[in-house]
Amino acid sequence: MADTLKQMEKVLILFQDGSEYLVRLEEKKLHTHLGTIDLGELIGKDYGDVVKTSTGKVGFILRPTLLEEIMKMKRRTQIVYPKDSSYIALKLDVKEGDKVIDSGVGSGAMCAVLARHVGKTGKVFAYERRKEFAELARENLKEWGLLDRVEIKVKDIGEGFDEKDVDALFLDVPDPWNYVKVCWEALRGGGRFAVVCPTTNQVQETLKEINNLPFVKVEVWESLFRAYKPVHERFRPVDRMVAHTAYMIFAVKVKEKEARI
Amino acid sequence: MADTLKQMEKVLILFQDGSEYLVRLEEKKLHTHLGTIDLGELIGKDYGDVVKTSTGKVGFILRPTLLEEIMKMKRRTQIVYPKDSSYIALKLDVKEGDKVIDSGVGSGAMCAVLARHVGKTGKVFAYERRKEFAELARENLKEWGLLDRVEIKVKDIGEGFDEKDVDALFLDVPDPWNYVKVCWEALRGGGRFAVVCPTTNQVQETLKEINNLPFVKVEVWESLFRAYKPVHERFRPVDRMVAHTAYMIFAVKVKEKEARI
Amino acid sequence: MADTLKQMEKVLILFQDGSEYLVRLEEKKLHTHLGTIDLGELIGKDYGDVVKTSTGKVGFILRPTLLEEIMKMKRRTQIVYPKDSSYIALKLDVKEGDKVIDSGVGSGAMCAVLARHVGKTGKVFAYERRKEFAELARENLKEWGLLDRVEIKVKDIGEGFDEKDVDALFLDVPDPWNYVKVCWEALRGGGRFAVVCPTTNQVQETLKEINNLPFVKVEVWESLFRAYKPVHERFRPVDRMVAHTAYMIFAVKVKEKEARI
Amino acid sequence: MADTLKQMEKVLILFQDGSEYLVRLEEKKLHTHLGTIDLGELIGKDYGDVVKTSTGKVGFILRPTLLEEIMKMKRRTQIVYPKDSSYIALKLDVKEGDKVIDSGVGSGAMCAVLARHVGKTGKVFAYERRKEFAELARENLKEWGLLDRVEIKVKDIGEGFDEKDVDALFLDVPDPWNYVKVCWEALRGGGRFAVVCPTTNQVQETLKEINNLPFVKVEVWESLFRAYKPVHERFRPVDRMVAHTAYMIFAVKVKEKEARI
Repeated sequence: MADTLKQMEKVLILFQDGSEYLVRLEEKKLHTHLGTIDLGELIGKDYGDVVKTSTGKVGFILRPTLLEEIMKMKRRTQIVYPKDSSYIALKLDVKEGDKVIDSGVGSGAMCAVLARHVGKTGKVFAYERRKEFAELARENLKEWGLLDRVEIKVKDIGEGFDEKDVDALFLDVPDPWNYVKVCWEALRGGGRFAVVCPTTNQVQETLKEINNLPFVKVEVWESLFRAYKPVHERFRPVDRMVAHTAYMIFAVKVKEKEARI
Repeated sequence: MADTLKQMEKVLILFQDGSEYLVRLEEKKLHTHLGTIDLGELIGKDYGDVVKTSTGKVGFILRPTLLEEIMKMKRRTQIVYPKDSSYIALKLDVKEGDKVIDSGVGSGAMCAVLARHVGKTGKVFAYERRKEFAELARENLKEWGLLDRVEIKVKDIGEGFDEKDVDALFLDVPDPWNYVKVCWEALRGGGRFAVVCPTTNQVQETLKEINNLPFVKVEVWESLFRAYKPVHERFRPVDRMVAHTAYMIFAVKVKEKEARI
Repeated sequence: MADTLKQMEKVLILFQDGSEYLVRLEEKKLHTHLGTIDLGELIGKDYGDVVKTSTGKVGFILRPTLLEEIMKMKRRTQIVYPKDSSYIALKLDVKEGDKVIDSGVGSGAMCAVLARHVGKTGKVFAYERRKEFAELARENLKEWGLLDRVEIKVKDIGEGFDEKDVDALFLDVPDPWNYVKVCWEALRGGGRFAVVCPTTNQVQETLKEINNLPFVKVEVWESLFRAYKPVHERFRPVDRMVAHTAYMIFAVKVKEKEARI
Repeated sequence: MADTLKQMEKVLILFQDGSEYLVRLEEKKLHTHLGTIDLGELIGKDYGDVVKTSTGKVGFILRPTLLEEIMKMKRRTQIVYPKDSSYIALKLDVKEGDKVIDSGVGSGAMCAVLARHVGKTGKVFAYERRKEFAELARENLKEWGLLDRVEIKVKDIGEGFDEKDVDALFLDVPDPWNYVKVCWEALRGGGRFAVVCPTTNQVQETLKEINNLPFVKVEVWESLFRAYKPVHERFRPVDRMVAHTAYMIFAVKVKEKEARI
């Protein structure tokens, strides 16, 4: 009952050729290469239901996941991929009620994952230097129903962050080494820090800074996800895969520098 | 202020040789190979503070993360590793208020991740056939402060699940193919399904069942996480890594069988 | 001196945009998107020399490697990739003077690697059921100057191999499990056996047969090769990579079944 | 017949618990944890034969491969692993009759692979600065029957190589960037160049030099080999694997600098 689809509800329509359409239910026609669907007629149906196009093609009405929204969103920047963002959120131990910083926000992919983890009682302070990206992130987060727990700030972090004692801080900028110190300052004692960067040179520069400040448990990871063909008689990996997204650097703030790990 | 450590608070004490102790603060002595620490004296200190042992060795007081708790917990089963569990939670789109099923619970590692994602307003129905594992999971979840949102059921799922219309279902049993049907029945339309298994034979059997039922978006993934030495002048991967934990199968329930993707 | 390029010598011409042309030097014009080259004029030049096209574009005259020949050859089949074939040749311990079997030959990629390893004094017995592939392999091997040490046989191996006591045997057919016995029979005591197959199901079937016969040191491997961008200031892996080619199975023949490892 | 084992022949004895002994056949006893074997009594037997110890344990007489010799040799240095050395030899296109340089030799693992590829008519010029390693390499290469085609030189390559116009050059030293120029000088036009180094910093420094000299087709690769449990009913990767050995850099010499790819 509760699942009955309502006016303006967002659905993912999946066709049998694998094509997908992310749409809102309203009195409008969806035109696809497989025929037309009257979106208004889907109101009152349920997730998982079958829908037919004007040409009789079968589609399925699905509930879009955050991961699907992220992968399909309007973006103008490189994003943190779900394979990495989910692990980072767990390593940062982000949970209901936490106060965390996300900088720079870019298109909002990582921010969304953090926002979901802090829940309704937490807050993500999301810094972005470039106004147009901040606007894009705001639009995306609003679309995903997560804007209420995010405070977007158009600001250069060279001056430092406005917050103190945040539980966790995520840094994704081209020159992270220049901001390690202000990150340390914004974190609470024992606060968790994560940085992503695509090149080994960036990792090296950033590690140098991190190792010069009171951080412990410094780790660097990369993840490789490999998909398999879901065919039981010929089970094997697909032919090609993503080889690289970013290196993930993790560290934990302690209060005193002397006495490092 | 708010961070001041209280009586019975759980902390992770990290020493400079990398050794770690997960303890509660009470009037008790912690004996380590680096000397003794009077745990009662840490009450009133803060996370990130430095503590010295009787022999003058330096330790750091850290706030244990769920990931650290999971990796250090008492376990009698193989667990779903954080590298996999974090991705599964995102793929299953588990969020505040969701009702999800976790079966079989084992030591509770995956259950904890799901429990954190459903938040205070959601619920994890956690099935476990073997009483001793159910007890262990209960103990672990209580220790991690997540038991309030988990309902542990000592029950064989061969008879099916008690719940209907759950948002997501996670299956981790030795013979998953025998339970795909009851999983389908418990899921809501559009509900998300995930299975883990260590061998390719198990994946094949399970795919066969999944492909015979109204599921779409069937995917199989594996993840490889590689750590690097965090040394900026000699940045390189560590020598050895985990080569395999489990294959992850994902699918989405639709209502009708005909018309498959 | 000795390197002076001769009539009909085969060269690889590499342009600055990365495009490559594999050609023989004769009185003929090579037409490319970067202009024309008079191939006859390259006779008398040397490998490593620079050549200019009619439009002034710069190209380099390189000596094609076997690896480049394989990757650029006419093929009608899946080939064993160099990343795998080089390792297989070493695992099979193929060396000057060895007698080895290659079955089925396909386009001849693996056969070429084996042929190079057995040297002028060795021999590769190359079986292929399909006449058109045998012809293609013959043409390719001749082109690469390796045909003198290969004996191509158009024959179904279901009847067994003509040779006995071969040093090594390489098997690449869709149903390897049906031929494990005839492979065992053709190998000498201590002879090395390798099989490639793309799916886990094929590996399982084949392992079952191998483990039922007097083979020891049974191993299965897969290789993942990742390329990096060769830029020193932004050193990082490329975005995408080959995720899967084939599983490689290895085993060593012993004479008696009882007493397995 | 030809396979009948002779006095002083080297064999690999494999026991059913997977333990292996690399020994020469002579009038001597081999003492193992599974009992004693009279090695003289194996003379006249054949590879693949079964042998029993004094306590009735079963062993198999195998012919050691170069790969096994390398992995079991006396070594005092990091070696180039077979997974990498076999690919490097193919990328360098080393073949019968080639003249190649190997520097520094270390324990001789890569040198052996190159020596096998150049055949009886080729030559490997093997440079090593440290006398004790040169001696170790000589001993190892002699043991493997490959010393006839290798010329070991105890010499610092800072002064350059004695040879000109070599077909291929392999460089494995801690500071490869200091020797790229002398490598270029020793190579023939179109000659193939390979460098291995374990850290990203070394790769960056070396790429910088290579990109400053007339080299084309500059590539960097790494290989990951994953073993599977050879059990057909529970086919899956083993739990742990080698995560990193070395980055492999490849390039081809051209004669003029201007006009780079």
